[in-house]
Amino acid sequence: MKYDRIYNFSAGPSMLPLPVLEEVHEELFNYRGSGQSVMEMSHRSKVFQGIHDEAKADLRALMGIPENYKILFIQGGATLQFSMIPMNLKKNGVFDYVVSGSWSNGAAKEAARFGKVNVVANSKDRNYAYVPDVSDLPISEDADYLYICENETIYGTTYQELPNTKGKILISDQSSMFLSKPVKVSDYGIIYGGVQKNVGPAGMAIVIIREDLIREDIDESVPVYLRYHVQDKGDSMYNTPNCWAIYFCGKVFKYLQSIGGLEAVHKNNVEKAKPLYDFLDQSKMFKGTVDKKDRSLMNVPFVTGDEELDAKVVAATKAAGFENLKGHRTVGGLRASIYNAMPKEGVVALVEFLKDFEAKHG
Amino acid sequence: MKYDRIYNFSAGPSMLPLPVLEEVHEELFNYRGSGQSVMEMSHRSKVFQGIHDEAKADLRALMGIPENYKILFIQGGATLQFSMIPMNLKKNGVFDYVVSGSWSNGAAKEAARFGKVNVVANSKDRNYAYVPDVSDLPISEDADYLYICENETIYGTTYQELPNTKGKILISDQSSMFLSKPVKVSDYGIIYGGVQKNVGPAGMAIVIIREDLIREDIDESVPVYLRYHVQDKGDSMYNTPNCWAIYFCGKVFKYLQSIGGLEAVHKNNVEKAKPLYDFLDQSKMFKGTVDKKDRSLMNVPFVTGDEELDAKVVAATKAAGFENLKGHRTVGGLRASIYNAMPKEGVVALVEFLKDFEAKHG
Repeated sequence: MKYDRIYNFSAGPSMLPLPVLEEVHEELFNYRGSGQSVMEMSHRSKVFQGIHDEAKADLRALMGIPENYKILFIQGGATLQFSMIPMNLKKNGVFDYVVSGSWSNGAAKEAARFGKVNVVANSKDRNYAYVPDVSDLPISEDADYLYICENETIYGTTYQELPNTKGKILISDQSSMFLSKPVKVSDYGIIYGGVQKNVGPAGMAIVIIREDLIREDIDESVPVYLRYHVQDKGDSMYNTPNCWAIYFCGKVFKYLQSIGGLEAVHKNNVEKAKPLYDFLDQSKMFKGTVDKKDRSLMNVPFVTGDEELDAKVVAATKAAGFENLKGHRTVGGLRASIYNAMPKEGVVALVEFLKDFEAKHG
Repeated sequence: MKYDRIYNFSAGPSMLPLPVLEEVHEELFNYRGSGQSVMEMSHRSKVFQGIHDEAKADLRALMGIPENYKILFIQGGATLQFSMIPMNLKKNGVFDYVVSGSWSNGAAKEAARFGKVNVVANSKDRNYAYVPDVSDLPISEDADYLYICENETIYGTTYQELPNTKGKILISDQSSMFLSKPVKVSDYGIIYGGVQKNVGPAGMAIVIIREDLIREDIDESVPVYLRYHVQDKGDSMYNTPNCWAIYFCGKVFKYLQSIGGLEAVHKNNVEKAKPLYDFLDQSKMFKGTVDKKDRSLMNVPFVTGDEELDAKVVAATKAAGFENLKGHRTVGGLRASIYNAMPKEGVVALVEFLKDFEAKHG
């Protein structure tokens, strides 16, 4: 590949679009005649305000975000959102969670600091290899919201249909599927995602929040940085934001629009994942770990069923220049994360390699 | 200047060392043969772990940080530390603050969410134009700590002597003076700073904390991201950190060591600020706003005493290619922030310009 770059199958941070890296490289010392790197700009300057406003407008256009939703750029990753959501949305102090893997489980555990958590469905019985049926959940009558993690990075599952929330607010962690396909924003109260999987450099989450959920009258004990009202009033600049991530993500929004928007991105992702899933479905050595109906287009875990052989495959992929294919310890085996910026050729090359490996060692 | 760069007098984010930007530029597509940009690296990979460990070791060497202090890289800027400090250090729930300007005031207000705040000294009477006498403060008997902001960015004051804490733990916000001079770390319980003024790209604070202040047994209601114990146990990687900022700051640590360490940096800063203060002391048009004894080497506010003339000067500096000299609204006039990366030539050029302006309009 250009610049001797590798195929990086990391679950995140992971590959970023090369055309965006090239623009950033070009502008590094002097952003468009401003005489400064974006890393050196006052966040209160006109030039940075322009970058920030453009990023928001481009994301709004790309996702079709209605006017009654705000876009916030907040540091601290998804982890800080695990706390901010219950702290800011608490009314009755009852929070409903679907636990379909590690991240929704982590979010539910964190919410329990701030109220009563009801796990209304979970898929622990088969090591989170599927998404629970969410068509008729026992939603709590006084639930402040229903929470899901829409794509579980570690287990490689994704929701095909959104839950029937029975009128409650739906909150979705889309970290590992953010901008991978079109979504209907108005179905949600909050969509959020850490940017480091599918969008930009680590150190920021994007929070898309319906404006009526931004309340000033929350508990006095909620730290100032964690208040959506403060973040919104300051237009994500109550204090100095992660300017570099805002700049970089803004470029990615433009890039995705330029290649046809999220419909085209989704089509690419479907076509890109297909050779890998097709291979797994006919292989005698490798097997996908997720129920077919719930397979993620972003994270593809698979195993041989033999830990020693798994380790051998991982070592062989690494030696062949495919990076970060070792599966998470809770699933074992291998995991190929194939986010937007992974080219189809990367997946095809991996499949060829695995075929070859199977032919030699099968 | 090289690459048509300007002299940027912003209070932060602000100028960064060009040799560091040049290295970053060189490594952008492919960090040292890894085939990836640092922005694309898994934070759990060996190559990033190396960058992280090296950054910590280099900062420890540069500042002479004793072994019983931990170095944490935490998102959310100084603002999140305003909350984390009282939340994590609370025992009696009594917090003593010296209020010498906007930032210590903001920190004190935030701490009041979590306990009783005693302002043991303040310099509000003369619009924070000096640092209060801290040689014999009325420290609360049951204070959990004494807090100072050691360099007030907006008012341009800096402590010449540390307070007599009477045995209490000293906490210092060093954001706008971080790495500008040698400090004796063992005098403090915590030193912290947002990196975007003197070190690296915005989106991270560095927290240097004595290890006995890191407690697991704090209130259950403290969010997981805000717990020093969690941040420390995870070696700043409980969740994905701001990898880019860690990488960049690491390079700055090495760069500062290469030019002679913090003694040399301080000498540069003294020599660099001198022409500006000398000019202000003899000017009939411009006047520094801070008591001489408490002047900051980093932030230099000055006024003409006439708001219209101030605005005219600001406009003229901008037209001449000096950026971000407008003073903060609470002080008015002008402010030149001259952090480590501002070259002496920049200050000299500004002084020449101001002399000229005075000659023409005086």
